[in-house]
Amino acid sequence: MSVTTDDIWRRLDGLAKPPRSLGCLEELAARLCAAQGTLSPQTFPRRLVVFAADHGVARSGVTIWPASVTSLVVQAMCSGKAASTVLAQQTQTDVVIVNVGTFDKPQCKPPQGSDVVYHDRRIAAGTRNLAEEPALTEAEFQRAWDIGAHEAIGAARDRMRVVLVGDMGIGNTTPAACLATLLANVPLAEAVGRGAGADDQTLDRKRCVVRQAAARARALQSANPRAAIASIAGFEIAAMAGFFAAAHAQGLTILLDGAIAGAAALVAETQSPGVSDSMIAAHLSTEPSHCHVLRRLGLTPFLDWRLRLGEGTGALLLLPLLDAAAAILGQMATMDDLGVSSTDRA
Amino acid sequence: MSVTTDDIWRRLDGLAKPPRSLGCLEELAARLCAAQGTLSPQTFPRRLVVFAADHGVARSGVTIWPASVTSLVVQAMCSGKAASTVLAQQTQTDVVIVNVGTFDKPQCKPPQGSDVVYHDRRIAAGTRNLAEEPALTEAEFQRAWDIGAHEAIGAARDRMRVVLVGDMGIGNTTPAACLATLLANVPLAEAVGRGAGADDQTLDRKRCVVRQAAARARALQSANPRAAIASIAGFEIAAMAGFFAAAHAQGLTILLDGAIAGAAALVAETQSPGVSDSMIAAHLSTEPSHCHVLRRLGLTPFLDWRLRLGEGTGALLLLPLLDAAAAILGQMATMDDLGVSSTDRA
Repeated sequence: MSVTTDDIWRRLDGLAKPPRSLGCLEELAARLCAAQGTLSPQTFPRRLVVFAADHGVARSGVTIWPASVTSLVVQAMCSGKAASTVLAQQTQTDVVIVNVGTFDKPQCKPPQGSDVVYHDRRIAAGTRNLAEEPALTEAEFQRAWDIGAHEAIGAARDRMRVVLVGDMGIGNTTPAACLATLLANVPLAEAVGRGAGADDQTLDRKRCVVRQAAARARALQSANPRAAIASIAGFEIAAMAGFFAAAHAQGLTILLDGAIAGAAALVAETQSPGVSDSMIAAHLSTEPSHCHVLRRLGLTPFLDWRLRLGEGTGALLLLPLLDAAAAILGQMATMDDLGVSSTDRA
Repeated sequence: MSVTTDDIWRRLDGLAKPPRSLGCLEELAARLCAAQGTLSPQTFPRRLVVFAADHGVARSGVTIWPASVTSLVVQAMCSGKAASTVLAQQTQTDVVIVNVGTFDKPQCKPPQGSDVVYHDRRIAAGTRNLAEEPALTEAEFQRAWDIGAHEAIGAARDRMRVVLVGDMGIGNTTPAACLATLLANVPLAEAVGRGAGADDQTLDRKRCVVRQAAARARALQSANPRAAIASIAGFEIAAMAGFFAAAHAQGLTILLDGAIAGAAALVAETQSPGVSDSMIAAHLSTEPSHCHVLRRLGLTPFLDWRLRLGEGTGALLLLPLLDAAAAILGQMATMDDLGVSSTDRA
């Protein structure tokens, strides 16, 4: 499990093509080799785990969507007709949906023959409203973390090689912005974005909420850093963080989605340094915090497609390109095979 | 075959997601709908056709690679081990390689069970050296064009829905730069790039060659525009142009590769206006002319991955994302299905 950056680039530069002529695809291949510690990385089998939960702060006017949409989209996922499950099917990715705390109880029965599995692990009906009080206690945070970690261990037991994590939770760009502020010192104006389409008024309210909640968490931080994080987190974010930490420990490669996954990755890295070594950042979200968070994690995103849907869709879109990166490493002829040496160049 | 832009965006905005939250994927879906004139576009079956040929100008020091590499890479394609054929296999794309004029005669026997077909249609052993004389006569240009058109008609007869076109020809960024200068008035400094890795000296020579050849072609242009194009073209570029024109006439959707394909698309558009309506620009090449050429064609590229390999690799990399675009249109639930109306938004 030890390949150096030099080993990786010697291999890539020796393939039957002008050196670096596949641009970002080669950088993606290099990152994949580094994450897996091999020159023959694998991208199959793979699993998307979507963590869903609701947020008390949705009642404070930080989103234009009714919170009932969380459960409705979970139902659409179960039926295979949400953006994430459609893209997962396209990419031969199996799907596990874990409900860690929606307000409503979605009706989820994946159709027969479906690759979608649904687990009801609701800890509570949504978090408390972080605009008014701590969203989660430390114990609740830990419970969600453990549920996430359990799923990662399950993925490793099922011999997954690559894992993707998605989120579903109306209002969850607000806790994500709070976490970016607290853990990466992102300035307020760049921490808070429009999420799934906030108008100007909603954005103003969201900024006020984030400013106050982050300040309250910061006051807690030196005495009890985990309680500070819990106070502005969400069930799905805590579960994602636990998943990331355990996936890294299990040697799985993590294809990281957007802003919510980024906030959870930051939580995981804070609690368990080194987790980001197993991560490949799929894309740059339109949420302004995301770019700061990725920089803090030392990750460079590969797609810049103005995505802001969540559910793991950004990671799913990069997945076939990750397959392509593995394929050129595994299947292309080398310059030596062709009988062209570097001294042949005129 | 008549859907309006409004129809397309009404459909995309009605899907079960915040409007426009899939960013560029939705723009790709919209472009695909427009190209196919339907809200239910198809991306299967599809075929990559690679046209290969050599260039007399390679003898004038415009490239660091020996011209023999063209045939060696054609052989690697036939064996399924070139970048293009590896990526084609990944994306269930069948491959036809058409040799329209390499210097050497490659040994091509695709292995049994392979999806690769090889056609030897050599018109001559490379073009004349455009640094010294016209590269092609009008008759040679027409012969190559017809070979390309014949392949497009074959693709339509085989019920292909999407076609990709690749190039292989050491030295071919020089004719591509000449064509960009002649047909899109790209200034010399931005027309000539480093191709597959030219050093500073090679780049200087290339600029001189392009300046002179483009000036000679321009002097011919008003009296005989086709002869002007032929004088700075290549067999594979002429064949690609003929392919594009016929593919458009046959109603096929063209996923456009990089700088060489772009130059050929410009030739096709000049000869047969409207061809670009059937095109989707896969990516932006590092060749500086490409951006100008795409603008002239009215196309916006979707990937900006610093690719400069050719063989259709850029188009192949976008292909799974085109599949994703078709999948969200065909398989996602709508907001109505979920029971969420726009008035539900808080």
